[in-house]
This record gives sequence, C-alpha cells and structure tokens, in this order.
Amino acid sequence: MAASFQLLRTDSATAARRGRLTTRHGLVETPIFMPVGTQGTVKALTPAQVREVGAQIILGNTYHLNLRPGSELVRALGGLHKFMGWDGPILTDSGGFQVFSLAKLREIRDDGIAFASHLDGARLFLGPREVMTIQANLGSDIAMVLDECPPWPCSREECRRAVDRSLRWARECRQIAIDNGFLGAGHQVFAIVQGSTFDELRHEAAESLAALDFPGYAIGGVSVGEPEPEMVKQVAATAPFLPANKPRYTMGLGTPPQILKMIALGVDMFDCVHPTRVGRNGAAFTPDGLINLRNERFRTDPAPLVEGMDNYTCRSFSRAYLRHLVMANEILASTLLTLHNVHFYLDLAAQARAHIEAGDFAAWSRAWIARYEAGA
Amino acid sequence: MAASFQLLRTDSATAARRGRLTTRHGLVETPIFMPVGTQGTVKALTPAQVREVGAQIILGNTYHLNLRPGSELVRALGGLHKFMGWDGPILTDSGGFQVFSLAKLREIRDDGIAFASHLDGARLFLGPREVMTIQANLGSDIAMVLDECPPWPCSREECRRAVDRSLRWARECRQIAIDNGFLGAGHQVFAIVQGSTFDELRHEAAESLAALDFPGYAIGGVSVGEPEPEMVKQVAATAPFLPANKPRYTMGLGTPPQILKMIALGVDMFDCVHPTRVGRNGAAFTPDGLINLRNERFRTDPAPLVEGMDNYTCRSFSRAYLRHLVMANEILASTLLTLHNVHFYLDLAAQARAHIEAGDFAAWSRAWIARYEAGA
Repeated sequence: MAASFQLLRTDSATAARRGRLTTRHGLVETPIFMPVGTQGTVKALTPAQVREVGAQIILGNTYHLNLRPGSELVRALGGLHKFMGWDGPILTDSGGFQVFSLAKLREIRDDGIAFASHLDGARLFLGPREVMTIQANLGSDIAMVLDECPPWPCSREECRRAVDRSLRWARECRQIAIDNGFLGAGHQVFAIVQGSTFDELRHEAAESLAALDFPGYAIGGVSVGEPEPEMVKQVAATAPFLPANKPRYTMGLGTPPQILKMIALGVDMFDCVHPTRVGRNGAAFTPDGLINLRNERFRTDPAPLVEGMDNYTCRSFSRAYLRHLVMANEILASTLLTLHNVHFYLDLAAQARAHIEAGDFAAWSRAWIARYEAGA
Repeated sequence: MAASFQLLRTDSATAARRGRLTTRHGLVETPIFMPVGTQGTVKALTPAQVREVGAQIILGNTYHLNLRPGSELVRALGGLHKFMGWDGPILTDSGGFQVFSLAKLREIRDDGIAFASHLDGARLFLGPREVMTIQANLGSDIAMVLDECPPWPCSREECRRAVDRSLRWARECRQIAIDNGFLGAGHQVFAIVQGSTFDELRHEAAESLAALDFPGYAIGGVSVGEPEPEMVKQVAATAPFLPANKPRYTMGLGTPPQILKMIALGVDMFDCVHPTRVGRNGAAFTPDGLINLRNERFRTDPAPLVEGMDNYTCRSFSRAYLRHLVMANEILASTLLTLHNVHFYLDLAAQARAHIEAGDFAAWSRAWIARYEAGA
C-alpha cells in the first residue's frame, strides 16, 4: 500500500507529532479534530459552515447510516460525499461500537455481531464482510475494521477473547478490502487496538496489528467509562507500540484538555460529539472553560463568546443574544453554538500543530490546560 | 414627513404596482415578501443565510421581543439590528395581534389592552404609548400602530367599535412618534385599516387614516379565519381608498397564489410564517405546489427540490437527502427547507416585480397560479 502519511516533525519534550495524511478527498494536517456527522450531517450545521470553521475531515457513523437511509441507497445516490454535500475526506467507523452502545439483544459471535435495530427492532448482523461492504457503499476515505470493544471494567479473560476476536476480524477486513479493490482504489482501512486496562494485551494487540501494515491505527476501548488517569494510561501503553510512520487515532475523545494530553502521547486524530452535543444544550467552549448560556449572568453580556475569535458566531453575536436564543428554544441557538464549538476544537488542533512546529508544544499545552481548568 | 416611497410603475391590466421604499437601513424593492423573525431570528436561519436568499427586509414581533428578552435590554445592547446581527430594514408589528391570538385574560379598554403573558402569566398592558416606546427601543425602521383586530365573523357594532378605537390609537401613535422624535429621525409608522367584512367601514377607516398622512398603510384583519374569497374581497374593498403614493401591506399573508392575488389588487408588502413553519415541518414549495418530504416517493429521488433554482439547498442537495434529514429529525432539515422556502417566496416576489416591469404581470401570474394549483 502506498504511504499516505507523512510524519513532518516529532516534538522533543513530548511524543506529540505533526503530520500530513493524504486521502482520496484531499490532505489532512495532523493533529486534527474530526467533527462527527452521525446521520450524514454534522448536527445543526450546513456542510458550508463545517468547511467555513476549518474542518478538514469529518466522521460518519456506519451503524446509523446503514439503518437509515441504508448504505445501498447512499451508494445509488453517488456515495456519502455527494449525498451529504461534503467533498472533503470522510472517515467512517465500523458500526461495532454503536451496536455495543445502542442496539438491543446483541449477541457477539466469532463471525460477527447479531443485534436488533434501535429504531425498529429489525434483526441485523454485522460481520467483517458486512462492515467493509457498507463502508465501501458509503465511499469512505478511511474505513475502520470491525472490532469488539470490551466494557470497562472487564476480566482479563474477557479482554483476551475480545483482543483475539478483534485481531481476527481486522485481518479479515483487510483481506476483504484488498480483494474487493477498496484499498487498491486509494481508500484506507485503519485497525483498532483493544486491550482495556491490560498493558500487555494492548502491547500484543498493537504489535500484531502493526505487522499487518494497516494505513493507520486507532486506539479503541478508551473513554468507555474509565476514569481519566486510566484512559491516559491506556493510550500511553499503546502508542509506543504503533508504527511511527502511520497515523494514530483515539476514537470518541474528548474534552479539550484530554485532546491536548492525547496529542502529547503521540495521537494524531480525534473525533467527539462533545462540542456539537453541548452546543445543542446551550453551552460554549472558551479558553477559560465551558460556559452555560442559560446562566443569568450572560443576560446583558454584550461580549462575544470569545473575544477576537474568528468565527461567524463570535464576529456577529453577543452572549446576551445567544442566551436569548437558548432561552427561547430557537434552532439558531444550536447552529451558532455548534458552529463556535466545532471551530473551537478545530482551532485548538490548529494551535497544537503550530506549537509542535514551533517546538514549544509542551509549555503551551501545559499553560492552555491550566487556564482552561482554572476557569471551569 | 419626507416621501419614502416611490411608485415606479402601475400595471395596466391589474392594480399591481412596482415601487421602491427607502428606509434608514436601505432600499426595499416592492412588491416584497418579508421573512418573519418573531423572536429576533428568522427561525432556523442565520442572518447571513437570510441575506443570501435575497431578503431585503424582515419582520420582528413586538409582543414576543418585549416579553423576552425585553425591549429595554435590546435597546441597551444597541437595538434589534445589532442584537440579531441583521443590518437591513426591520418592520415590527405593534404586538396587538399577538395579544389577541396568544395572551390570556385579555381585556380591551379604550386606553389599550391589558393581558397576561403566555410565558409566565405576568400582567401586562399595551397602549399606544407602550407599543411606540417598545418599537423605538427596538429601533424599528417601520413601526406599526396599535390596532384592534376584530374576530371573524363579528357584528357590525363590534366592528364599528374596533374601527373607531383603532383610528384613535393610530392618531395617538402618530402623535407620540412625532413628539419623541421617532418620525423625525427617519423611522416610519404604518397605519392599519380594519373593518372586517364591512366594506363601508373599511372605506371609512381607509379614508380617515389616509387623511393622517402615514408613511404607509396596512390592510389588517384579513387572514383571520375567513374563507379566501372573503379575504380577497376585503383587500379589494380597502386598497382603492389608500393613497397611491404610499406602500400597502397585508399582514400575515399568505400562500404563494394569495400573494400574487394581493399583488394584483395593489398590495406591495407581505409577511407570513408559512414558508418557515412548513419548512420546519418537512415541506417545501415548488412551482407545482407544496411537497411533503416525508412522502415515500422522495426516498430515492436524486433531483433537487426545484430544478435550476439558485439557492444553497437546491444547488447542493437531493430530495432523497432532504427526506433522510426530515425522517432522522435532523436540525439541518429545518435549516435547508426553510432556506429554500424563504428563497422561493422572495424569488416569487422578484418574478412579480420583473413581470410588472415587463407589462405582462396578469398573464404570468394567471399561468403561475394555474400551474401551482394543478400540482397541489
């Protein structure tokens, strides 16, 4: 497989990396945050707004899109990019994680996962062939392998079984993607390292998957309920065993400080519903922490969410106006707060890239987290 | 008062007019549709999107804005234009109509209307002084007088009382706007002609108000439950008695065919929640009538809402995608359908202006309505 990732620089004080990922739909400068477009839309934003705030790549959810509207339909309409009006790169998950978190009556078997749709109870099945076919139908630039994400906490035996099964599925997914021409056509497939809190299982999983030479690697099974120090420990126990010349991705992470901590451990890619979800709930990110616009103190506040921040929401509207929209349950509140929050995450990633390049990532990151946590 | 309206052309076959209204925040080419921004936002759209689809003037609701966030707060934050990020003209209603339709425990007295807020039951009062003060606080380019809108049907006596009271209130509102410098500063005040289905009362009200030389005139008390022929009759019974050199406005109207019929009767300005409301409910306007995206027949439809229509929704998305968003209850469905629907109304007004200029308004309008109604 052609090298699609260029490692431009590694920080001297931390394991932070500055990289560049090439996809069928353009370049992605890393570290990068990927806004989540679960059902074929980054919630409350137009693709033009997603682009306007600097998104380079977005996420789609295989589980949701396969249930509704169906991956065959998306394929018939020209693929997910055309369907949702986004011409940049798209990464899709395998759907496995949503089966674990959303579906009912699931049964994990060696050949895949049988489950009932959370929408209508229909009996469905996702195995390696199904997830690779669905992601090919969607036209993902980066597809994820099917994996088994053990719960936290779990026993060593449980975890062992999940790691073994995930490795088998990863191998099968890779072979399917070779056989059906997906990899050959320049799409990518990322493997996922499981292992829960068992360092030696993570080490083993990382090395086994590294040997298969995937275009990229995710660190899975983090942010599934464990305390933050445990999460950091798991990522720290995994990253060093991943190939340095491949991008690394922690799935479903996290708060702004968590993202900076993960970057310091050598992670390059992040996705999280946090900025969009809290935006729809009336909260906004600032360098001094998350603020809730419902708070009475913003009623007369003429300041923008973040002074000098260059996005439509901050350029055009006061906190008082945004609070009014939130209190009046106006849809525009969701749009403007989501727009700002997604920009905040993308801007944080851009700052991280600049500081890795400048060689002062560690000091900057420490100060950034200290200010954020002092305000929160 | 300085002339703010220029009558550019009158149609020969109908009473349709092509005009130009000058306001403190710019020109308005008439006939024009005004998107409704009830609570300081055209629901589901950013001001940038409202501008992008060609809006020249929008509406704000005094009743709503005075309850929340309060007109004093809006004034303290620089007025409604700055508050909501819209630098074009804004027309505000007096709030009277919403008191009739939304508020509880209302009592109509000669000095105004006492009522309980629909939000928290607070006892409030709107008289001529209150509505003019609130609209001055908001910084409206065009303020409406307080009026009493009698229900349909109503007795001649009831209507007589409402017409007399509305005339007194109009006179008071005008005097207040002179005394407090509102009119002198270039803001405008429009009078409202009531009279229900009693032609001679409408005639009388129109002439009495015309004598007061307001900058513009609304035909009120239409679209309050009466059948469409009755509504057309009322407008036809009023318009001829309004001064030809002043803009005419029917409040809260209507469907696309109704707007064309009103234009043919010599009405220049329209506002209606119809395009925004049906957009949020999953429906879209087309030249062949309103379509409901929930309909199964759109599930695989790759066509835009309206072929060749130049707005973001039609340029970028298929009916199949829009249907998916509607079915998945995504906020983006509301945004994209509202954007299209508001553009559809504004484009209809633009076409009407062009055809009045070209001298073929009557034939074009007849054909437009026939096609629309055949499809619906």
